[in-house]
Amino acid sequence: MSGSTFGKHFSVTTWGESHGPALGVVIDGCPAGLSLHEEDIQMYLNRRKPGATSISTPRKESDLVQILSGVFEGRTTGTPISLMIPNTSQKSGDYSEIASYYRPGHADYTFDQKYGFRDYRGGGRSSGRETIGRVASGAIAAKILKELGIEICAYTKSIGPVSINPACFDRTAITETATCMPDRSADQKALLYLQECMQNKDSAGGVIECRITGVPAGIGEPVFDKLSAKLSAAVMSIGAVKAFEIGDGIAVAAARGSENNDAFYADKTGIHKKTNHAGGILGGISDGSEILLRAYIKPTPSIFSEQETVNRDGENISIQIKGRHDPVIVPRAVVVVECMCALALVDLLFFNMNASMDKIQSFYQK
Amino acid sequence: MSGSTFGKHFSVTTWGESHGPALGVVIDGCPAGLSLHEEDIQMYLNRRKPGATSISTPRKESDLVQILSGVFEGRTTGTPISLMIPNTSQKSGDYSEIASYYRPGHADYTFDQKYGFRDYRGGGRSSGRETIGRVASGAIAAKILKELGIEICAYTKSIGPVSINPACFDRTAITETATCMPDRSADQKALLYLQECMQNKDSAGGVIECRITGVPAGIGEPVFDKLSAKLSAAVMSIGAVKAFEIGDGIAVAAARGSENNDAFYADKTGIHKKTNHAGGILGGISDGSEILLRAYIKPTPSIFSEQETVNRDGENISIQIKGRHDPVIVPRAVVVVECMCALALVDLLFFNMNASMDKIQSFYQK
Amino acid sequence: MSGSTFGKHFSVTTWGESHGPALGVVIDGCPAGLSLHEEDIQMYLNRRKPGATSISTPRKESDLVQILSGVFEGRTTGTPISLMIPNTSQKSGDYSEIASYYRPGHADYTFDQKYGFRDYRGGGRSSGRETIGRVASGAIAAKILKELGIEICAYTKSIGPVSINPACFDRTAITETATCMPDRSADQKALLYLQECMQNKDSAGGVIECRITGVPAGIGEPVFDKLSAKLSAAVMSIGAVKAFEIGDGIAVAAARGSENNDAFYADKTGIHKKTNHAGGILGGISDGSEILLRAYIKPTPSIFSEQETVNRDGENISIQIKGRHDPVIVPRAVVVVECMCALALVDLLFFNMNASMDKIQSFYQK
Amino acid sequence: MSGSTFGKHFSVTTWGESHGPALGVVIDGCPAGLSLHEEDIQMYLNRRKPGATSISTPRKESDLVQILSGVFEGRTTGTPISLMIPNTSQKSGDYSEIASYYRPGHADYTFDQKYGFRDYRGGGRSSGRETIGRVASGAIAAKILKELGIEICAYTKSIGPVSINPACFDRTAITETATCMPDRSADQKALLYLQECMQNKDSAGGVIECRITGVPAGIGEPVFDKLSAKLSAAVMSIGAVKAFEIGDGIAVAAARGSENNDAFYADKTGIHKKTNHAGGILGGISDGSEILLRAYIKPTPSIFSEQETVNRDGENISIQIKGRHDPVIVPRAVVVVECMCALALVDLLFFNMNASMDKIQSFYQK
Repeated sequence: MSGSTFGKHFSVTTWGESHGPALGVVIDGCPAGLSLHEEDIQMYLNRRKPGATSISTPRKESDLVQILSGVFEGRTTGTPISLMIPNTSQKSGDYSEIASYYRPGHADYTFDQKYGFRDYRGGGRSSGRETIGRVASGAIAAKILKELGIEICAYTKSIGPVSINPACFDRTAITETATCMPDRSADQKALLYLQECMQNKDSAGGVIECRITGVPAGIGEPVFDKLSAKLSAAVMSIGAVKAFEIGDGIAVAAARGSENNDAFYADKTGIHKKTNHAGGILGGISDGSEILLRAYIKPTPSIFSEQETVNRDGENISIQIKGRHDPVIVPRAVVVVECMCALALVDLLFFNMNASMDKIQSFYQK
Repeated sequence: MSGSTFGKHFSVTTWGESHGPALGVVIDGCPAGLSLHEEDIQMYLNRRKPGATSISTPRKESDLVQILSGVFEGRTTGTPISLMIPNTSQKSGDYSEIASYYRPGHADYTFDQKYGFRDYRGGGRSSGRETIGRVASGAIAAKILKELGIEICAYTKSIGPVSINPACFDRTAITETATCMPDRSADQKALLYLQECMQNKDSAGGVIECRITGVPAGIGEPVFDKLSAKLSAAVMSIGAVKAFEIGDGIAVAAARGSENNDAFYADKTGIHKKTNHAGGILGGISDGSEILLRAYIKPTPSIFSEQETVNRDGENISIQIKGRHDPVIVPRAVVVVECMCALALVDLLFFNMNASMDKIQSFYQK
Repeated sequence: MSGSTFGKHFSVTTWGESHGPALGVVIDGCPAGLSLHEEDIQMYLNRRKPGATSISTPRKESDLVQILSGVFEGRTTGTPISLMIPNTSQKSGDYSEIASYYRPGHADYTFDQKYGFRDYRGGGRSSGRETIGRVASGAIAAKILKELGIEICAYTKSIGPVSINPACFDRTAITETATCMPDRSADQKALLYLQECMQNKDSAGGVIECRITGVPAGIGEPVFDKLSAKLSAAVMSIGAVKAFEIGDGIAVAAARGSENNDAFYADKTGIHKKTNHAGGILGGISDGSEILLRAYIKPTPSIFSEQETVNRDGENISIQIKGRHDPVIVPRAVVVVECMCALALVDLLFFNMNASMDKIQSFYQK
Repeated sequence: MSGSTFGKHFSVTTWGESHGPALGVVIDGCPAGLSLHEEDIQMYLNRRKPGATSISTPRKESDLVQILSGVFEGRTTGTPISLMIPNTSQKSGDYSEIASYYRPGHADYTFDQKYGFRDYRGGGRSSGRETIGRVASGAIAAKILKELGIEICAYTKSIGPVSINPACFDRTAITETATCMPDRSADQKALLYLQECMQNKDSAGGVIECRITGVPAGIGEPVFDKLSAKLSAAVMSIGAVKAFEIGDGIAVAAARGSENNDAFYADKTGIHKKTNHAGGILGGISDGSEILLRAYIKPTPSIFSEQETVNRDGENISIQIKGRHDPVIVPRAVVVVECMCALALVDLLFFNMNASMDKIQSFYQK
């Protein structure tokens, strides 16, 4: 295994390199009877495409998805769904330079150490294009969740020093701003900051926040497959993510128990919590309140200023990366975070279906 | 599956509740020929036991491990190793109270929602005693790693507002201080802080840091089973961990690419990095430098001050938790973090053994 | 992994050697709320114990099971169930002889080749005692199936040349005869045959048949996890099984399509088949009729006549195995076949619960 | 999971329906550095294509494979290999009839029971075309095995009453005869028998035998993942296989221990067995001798004579299947058996690489 499969029940296997003929994903375990059309998936893929903005790489990929199996007359059949997205604009160009040295912050060196050689064209399998399969399959997971009343909403929380103002939260802005910030004023400030980065041949990092609503209490397994652990594995498997938080996250370390505990209360609609420091997860299991998490993304490693490194012959050299690269990864990773959360959550929802004899008996007695 | 198995190659399955007859773990996939005695494991279990200090629960458990299978004449045989640790001092006492309501910050409510009822004695499966199986199996993983030249060292970085001074790093202090801090002066300050917490019927959180040295470059898989993702899943599956960082962690979000990239350089001994913002992992694969990670632990949820909550009949009530509980989870979780990292790492080391035809052929041609 | 785990949802991990302190199994994924007591399991373990008959080894093992976790107040909690069966009568005796050579028909040679050495006492992990964990966990799987209206019944179909007469089928005889044949007259003939084998210092093989009733149509997955493939893997993993059949089995190779196809017909109670050549499985999925399978068991390899073999020094030698061994494996394997079928079936029943959106939605809308 | 993944290390996931745009497979876990070209795979796919013979369906499919990922400059890169085979000649024709009723011997009824509806065009996912992904990935597994000195050879042993004469074994005939028999005379007789079947609007079954040479001793895991169990699961997962044997197979049930045990002997080249009743597997682990297995295939269920069945409205009807169908499945399944054995074996070979500390240490010390 090269670890390209995620999930045990809703199990997705991604494949493809930046400059191969196509990328794609096979989903095994999608239940039968889900209405599914290419548009459902395309909508998500379009969100990860570079926009026509000042902060996006000009690589023009249509990224059109084709459904090759598992769907009949507009509905899933229960058998594997194969999705393919052809690479249309890859120009292998002159990669002989990249082939010969190790770019700082990239996986060139570690791939060579692991496999003995690498597909160096555009980063090969370690390219950001690898996330296409995650997004295409995550779109289906998100559709299943929606039918169960569960919504996932990720957005940019900060870029470099610029953070959104939660008081100005504007959900429509997420898909309308270049930064995917839910705050148009912060978006403008962040663009100025990014412009400055580009002028300095530099790049910026940032934070993605994700909120999941409608999750029933009881999802997640008590030991190794905690909901928090699965979401963490899902999000930390995205290239460039270097930290992960649930709820109050790192702040819990400085809090006292009396501040951090969420009191329960009951009203006519059921049992709730007065606060949500826990981010919707207690003992690894969803508690019915909003699930809140954050991913910390490193700055784009491809920068245009001069850098020191080593070539394949083991010589110390100076390089200057060419081509054009986004000055920030964050905005295009927002939909990837959303999709990885959807994949983790669907898997655990299916996992949970045989948690009690009552439920199994009522299932099989229908 | 209730998710009690971790690892695909070095696969451990833990079992046991706080007040059952015993806890334990089965390790499937331990290679044959490893020298193994009960002392190798007991050494680790002793590190997670409450010490005779002011900040430890007085539950007196000897926590003596028994090897029930998989070892013959002092060496592992390649077949499953079953380890059992009897519970000797559990007094079921009067748990009828806990049984009837949901403690804030605990898994009482979510277990009831998931399973319909729960073993409420001492938290049952969601008790901190669940980590015994992790530590017992992690001790074996750590022993394998040691034979391969890999060492894992975790310690307390901070408790509440008190942090260690890296300039004073004293490795021997880790196992000698009550806080597991590698800085005896910070340890004293932290104890004062904890005393204050206890006087206020409150509790504290903190940060555990872990350093792994000797890992060859090339470990970790490029997509979902990245070394970072596996370590994250391992550590975030420990109860009370709410955030996880690799290398510079959350700080990367505010850094610029020129600051965050680690330059490569070569000398006679091979290829290295000038800095280690990446925490030893590039593209999800180890780069040969030290692996550095941090876990953020919430304050003990069992506090003695009055708290609001709900009982099983759905009535709003006030409670005051009795018994005695550690005012901080961090020190006893240090060895758990170390063990979970060992489990994740051994698994990926074994995973990596069929990464290339060269290596497979030389393996089978011996 | 040394492959000691079976099942992905109802996942059992067995451990233990013939002459270690104990054997056991951990079941992860047993749903909460199943009534479970030690007697439920003991009943099955007693069926695999040597009886006080002329064809059983006189090793006297009480084989008493202990439930160590996962059950609270007589009901399963949803967390791992750990079962332990102490070895009470193992006398390591003088195994130095066995240690030094390779018994024909046994795993001595292959274990040495794989692991470099072996726990030779009584066969170690390759002993028939390894099936204790299968039976203990299978008893729980069978109990779940019973609650869903599914019954599994295995019995001895033949021993050497003696077969049961299906016209005389007497279910009570299965647990009352020494051979586990459902035909008391065949049982007597088989005992005579076995006596003759023993007099000749020889042993016999035989056939176990298994019938599963009450399985709803739709269980099994269409490609690699076909019900037939899973049952086959389950049964062929029992030591000494060398062939496996579903329905008409090997006879289908000589049949014509017009003979082998089972015609469908409908009546008021639903859709049925006029015949059952298929053994209850079509396209790998249960069709609602009885599931019928057979396992072919080799003769006990431990025979008392002189045999040629090789010792660990690579010298050709003659040996004569001592001690006492059952002249036939079949009767004690009957309950093992039953239990392995139960494990395979429960796993696929749980697998099937997320086959369609309708069912998932109705599950989560309760 | 709909169970479309086989193998834990060399993990293949197949997808595709008879009448969709394409079929394919993703291989995750193929080691880097294997020379691989489309011809390597095409060679195997051509063997499963209908030949231009009297016993083959005239559906004309070119079945040309495309490598979409995981190969760079003629060598595998260690990342997932995606293979696609477009469906070129599917004419959806008039399937409304098949859509409305349940063909005896087919999976129509069980799919409807499982999923609520089905892709009825040409059998959808339950079509024999599903095996394309098995063969395409098995070709790669076979290539790896070849580099390790392991060869797999399957052939038709019998069709209906016609069996090969082992004394006339002619390996070249396997790929040159219409029946894939290694005996040209038996091939002619079998063709006559099949012609008679066709005249009677009927079909025939048969037996496939498979021999695997060059497997080192020590492959296979001692309990559930025995080599025999894995091969059985692999072969029994092929549609139409109803029985499976290792070595002497069903014959062991009637043999005596003194007949069935294989004596060991040593010579200058090592340790061997005088006979091979065990079929190369002892205690579930390869013993270094030839592995021998057989699969029993049912007659083609699509026959042209009138059959009784039920339609989707639950009415009893008579049907006559149209179109044209092979009168026997066996010859085209020969390469499928070979490929499934290759997949099972590669997986266990990789599994075995961390069986002992010695080997792990020497691996990581290079």
